[in-house]
Amino acid sequence: MLLSNFFLPILKENPKEAEIASHILMLRSGMIQQSSSGIYSWLPLGKIILDKITAICNTEMINAGSNEILMPTLQSAELWKESGRYEDYGKEMLRIVDRNQRDLLYGPTNEELVTEIFRTHIKSYKELPLILFHSQWKFRDELRPRFGVMRGREFLMKDAYSFDVDYVSSIISYNKMFIAYMQLFKKMGLKAIPMKADTGPIGGDLSHEFIIMAETGESEVYLEKDFINFEGLSGNVNYNDNLQPIVDKYTSFYAATEEKHNHENFTNNDNHIIKARGIEVGHIFHFGQKYSTPMNANVNNDKGKNIPVYMGSYGVGLSRLVGAVIEANHDKSGIIWPKEITPWDYNIINLKSGDDQCDKICSDLYSYLRKNCNTVLYDDTNDRAGAKLAKADLIGLPYQIIVGPNGIKDQVYDLKNRKSGETHKLSYSELLNFFNSKSI
Amino acid sequence: MLLSNFFLPILKENPKEAEIASHILMLRSGMIQQSSSGIYSWLPLGKIILDKITAICNTEMINAGSNEILMPTLQSAELWKESGRYEDYGKEMLRIVDRNQRDLLYGPTNEELVTEIFRTHIKSYKELPLILFHSQWKFRDELRPRFGVMRGREFLMKDAYSFDVDYVSSIISYNKMFIAYMQLFKKMGLKAIPMKADTGPIGGDLSHEFIIMAETGESEVYLEKDFINFEGLSGNVNYNDNLQPIVDKYTSFYAATEEKHNHENFTNNDNHIIKARGIEVGHIFHFGQKYSTPMNANVNNDKGKNIPVYMGSYGVGLSRLVGAVIEANHDKSGIIWPKEITPWDYNIINLKSGDDQCDKICSDLYSYLRKNCNTVLYDDTNDRAGAKLAKADLIGLPYQIIVGPNGIKDQVYDLKNRKSGETHKLSYSELLNFFNSKSI
Repeated sequence: MLLSNFFLPILKENPKEAEIASHILMLRSGMIQQSSSGIYSWLPLGKIILDKITAICNTEMINAGSNEILMPTLQSAELWKESGRYEDYGKEMLRIVDRNQRDLLYGPTNEELVTEIFRTHIKSYKELPLILFHSQWKFRDELRPRFGVMRGREFLMKDAYSFDVDYVSSIISYNKMFIAYMQLFKKMGLKAIPMKADTGPIGGDLSHEFIIMAETGESEVYLEKDFINFEGLSGNVNYNDNLQPIVDKYTSFYAATEEKHNHENFTNNDNHIIKARGIEVGHIFHFGQKYSTPMNANVNNDKGKNIPVYMGSYGVGLSRLVGAVIEANHDKSGIIWPKEITPWDYNIINLKSGDDQCDKICSDLYSYLRKNCNTVLYDDTNDRAGAKLAKADLIGLPYQIIVGPNGIKDQVYDLKNRKSGETHKLSYSELLNFFNSKSI
Repeated sequence: MLLSNFFLPILKENPKEAEIASHILMLRSGMIQQSSSGIYSWLPLGKIILDKITAICNTEMINAGSNEILMPTLQSAELWKESGRYEDYGKEMLRIVDRNQRDLLYGPTNEELVTEIFRTHIKSYKELPLILFHSQWKFRDELRPRFGVMRGREFLMKDAYSFDVDYVSSIISYNKMFIAYMQLFKKMGLKAIPMKADTGPIGGDLSHEFIIMAETGESEVYLEKDFINFEGLSGNVNYNDNLQPIVDKYTSFYAATEEKHNHENFTNNDNHIIKARGIEVGHIFHFGQKYSTPMNANVNNDKGKNIPVYMGSYGVGLSRLVGAVIEANHDKSGIIWPKEITPWDYNIINLKSGDDQCDKICSDLYSYLRKNCNTVLYDDTNDRAGAKLAKADLIGLPYQIIVGPNGIKDQVYDLKNRKSGETHKLSYSELLNFFNSKSI
């Protein structure tokens, strides 16, 4: 991508309204723009990252055998009256009246609507297990929207729903999603830690939150020190295997959100268990027949008995994850994208656009990288050299290739690793060798 | 994809609420499900098609040099008061009040919000031209939602917005989008016809609708007979070329929607100009400074003068297109997907699942097609043979490979072309040759 063709409205000053690093950096790097309180537009750089995170999440959902659907943003109030949540949900639910005076709402979650889809079509255990998921915008009318996309009102969530004929099978589905979550966060370059969690307005008997450790996180958590460095799963998973032993391994560590933490034990064990802060990026729930019973979502089991289906639901905060990735990967100069979700691998910086020799070298490098399938952003704008270097650090691509008149004289070019900060002076052919050897 | 792993809830009967072919077929083939009046859930088969159509559209927008963003579904009423449209828009606008008594609305279109993004960041002609686009759900509270996704209330639209420093440049942007639209419909296997159109609530001095001819279409149109068979552009376009001559070629034909048609001329020319029906799938507008003037979206031109920017907007009805493609491509047995957007190329039909020999041949064919990058759906369910054949015709993949006990005996298998209805009896090796030679 030529930067001159890419809409990247960089802010030079830290925006006053932003308190935490990810919010500041997303505004400064032109990823998002607030449109009203807790509601954001995603500008081109932000949209690319949001899409990458969504794609990684959706792919893992499909690997785990689930089916992608797309439910609408607006739902009828009728279904929520069936489950009893229309009254219970409180002021976070955005209630809407249409031109025919019918009650609608902007979905904060989709248990009711997906249960309606299920009960319309599925009548027998023979069609189970089934997991449906979608990635769709949700709305929760937060009292205090804050921290940019970390606690917005309109936000993108991937939510999955499992349907099983009995308790035992429904735990198998829960385990599949548990492991899929460990996998998808890892594939985003993130270390998420599963913790026992409260079930809140979703309900149920079993729940885990997936937490990214970060000092700015809103969640207070308690966990065994050793869990932080536990490597867990490596490689791909066969989702048809018995996953219980792997789940047991994760849950053998003590880790709980504040609501679920046993404070009495904590005071006796402070060498072993630490108190820390984190960002909730996923939350899974096993709630059995909580929705299927009032909503009459029944199936026949293999004994011919008609029983309410067993369900669970599984959410990933896709738009929040963009902020969480930045909280976990930045320094004072800007963002440091993990290679798994970087928008481009390389950033070519022409320190003197308009200089024939600089233009030629940059343009050759750009063509070479494009041809060889490395993704590349070329800063061909007329900005000053200092502004270009600061911009490159701010937007945080893994490698910068810096081409300027001094380098041209000696026929060496700077290759900078954004994360380590190390710079190497390489000849043109050494650069090409680096591109070819580097499985970025 | 194994059909036993894919959620495809086929309806055996024609649903009573549906009047037109696309609505009937989308419900019967389990592509969509109504969740409330004019609001639909997309089930897995529908979601695949919607994604394919969106991807083709977005790719062509990027080819044409525009930048992808994503604006939110909910907008503040304040911006619409600036443009004057908050009062004008009428009952189709879904108005919402949040918990803090602030006025929001569900965006029916995005001229105001994109103008706000523009005026925040762009101050100089040096950063122009600029085209921003997004594909996002919109809501119009139609009085009579009908025809399924063809006239829904919540619908997916790709909308693009161009920004230019003067009238002449803004026509260049308009032409780019005009040609991009011809290209993207063609890449979906559709023949869209550009027609002079009314500007309606968007406003402006120049507008074209893109119409797919279909007897069930809601739009009455008048056009020269020869235009229907006009081939137009072939191959790719260089969007930096002067596109005016190509646009002129298209607009040299007489074609107008009912509102713009000159009825007087029509009565004198009925051999030459026909009256027909069609489906509006795209609409483009040139409205110059209509929004930038009241909203103070100004730029400095190269003379240092500060002037309101020239704009246009460009919409494609992505969810409506799914219906339109089916209106243009079906027969009495079901859908006939154009190869450009078919969910899979081949449909393997095992007429006797559980029979060792049938299972073996089907499974071998399935592995072969997957390995060789042909996309394939394998009906491995326990349905009866007749039900499987009807299902395959209903969901309309281009080629069916039918494997049953009679064929096994003679070692020949049926290859059916869904569109022509022709069936050929081929040996296993002849089938493989066909897969390899067929650039589907």
